[in-house]
Amino acid sequence: MNSVFVIGAHGQIGQLLIPKLAAKGIKAYAGIRDDKQAKNFPTDDLVLPVHFDLNASVKEIAECFEQNRVDAIVFTAGSGGGTGDDQTLIIDLDGAVKSMEAAQVAGIKRYVMVSSIGSDKRELWDKSGIKPYLIAKHYADAELQRTDLDYTILRPGMLTNDPGRGRISVNPENKSKTSIPRADVAEVIAEIVGNRATTGKSYTLGSGDTPIARHSKD
Amino acid sequence: MNSVFVIGAHGQIGQLLIPKLAAKGIKAYAGIRDDKQAKNFPTDDLVLPVHFDLNASVKEIAECFEQNRVDAIVFTAGSGGGTGDDQTLIIDLDGAVKSMEAAQVAGIKRYVMVSSIGSDKRELWDKSGIKPYLIAKHYADAELQRTDLDYTILRPGMLTNDPGRGRISVNPENKSKTSIPRADVAEVIAEIVGNRATTGKSYTLGSGDTPIARHSKD
Repeated sequence: MNSVFVIGAHGQIGQLLIPKLAAKGIKAYAGIRDDKQAKNFPTDDLVLPVHFDLNASVKEIAECFEQNRVDAIVFTAGSGGGTGDDQTLIIDLDGAVKSMEAAQVAGIKRYVMVSSIGSDKRELWDKSGIKPYLIAKHYADAELQRTDLDYTILRPGMLTNDPGRGRISVNPENKSKTSIPRADVAEVIAEIVGNRATTGKSYTLGSGDTPIARHSKD
Repeated sequence: MNSVFVIGAHGQIGQLLIPKLAAKGIKAYAGIRDDKQAKNFPTDDLVLPVHFDLNASVKEIAECFEQNRVDAIVFTAGSGGGTGDDQTLIIDLDGAVKSMEAAQVAGIKRYVMVSSIGSDKRELWDKSGIKPYLIAKHYADAELQRTDLDYTILRPGMLTNDPGRGRISVNPENKSKTSIPRADVAEVIAEIVGNRATTGKSYTLGSGDTPIARHSKD
């Protein structure tokens, strides 16, 4: 794994992920919608901010992937809590699916999706408080699982801004109170993006006791 | 075709459809969310208002289908322009998919989906003015096409309240100005629901010159 394109690089997980990739010697193409966001990334030969917009066509997105030859795509974009559910449909669902289609057009096989805890459990949606978001993530995940991409789906619990602990629990029993620092989600992505053993698998993530590096070897 | 369950029976197309089904001797189970809506349907042995809610679980929806043994499902529910895009996700996408899953649980094979012109053409969405709605319809249609249900997808143009003309055009060339009275969409549904030749097919519908009955024999 030499290079990764990060969709949503300027998001909270994205900004934590970029330097972690670089620290592992992985070149990170940081997809940003506003070119001014470039200043928020470390100046590093392994960090390359690239203009990128999920509102573009599949053809345009594929061209962007082709111009920046990468070994993998990480999707960690999110419409965010401050926007309407129109953006949930446009970014979290259709934007995600467009990026999958573009990856296929560009011949990039590896795709890591940052989804959400509960997106695979419809019975939890009514009480989640974020039902529309979980619906969008559910159908985006379902589309990904039907592609022939070498995908991994990560479903973190409630995201916190606590410092990373480097220790997680995978598919925890009691999911209702599961939380995890964004820094640990970023660390998991950086660990597994090059790990073929995680291909075709989906993981719910919470804080826990097991070192991240150990899980990534599973 | 002896009986049909209409999801969205109280909607504008639904209310036109129910008497048309009865007129053809097809028993119509009219799914309504508010029991008071029953008064808006004709008193007829072939019209049976049934309490129905797309917010219910797949299990509950399937039980409703099983209690009212029907030969087909028609989905003509819509969240409507007056609600937020949260309902677009909840009703037009996930509600629709739940009804497909419930149809499969209940062993009902025939399923007619009222979709929308353009839902299969992503390149038209940005200028449509209803992009979030078209995204939801697109992914619901895609899910339907992947089931083993005997589906037909109808994609009418801009809906009007003009009187039905009984004449349509199927897959018209110039789609940008396509419109069709709701009464004609209802007539098409009533004609094709029992027509196995339309199984596995999708049709864009506009007003035109060809009698509806002739198309239904294709």
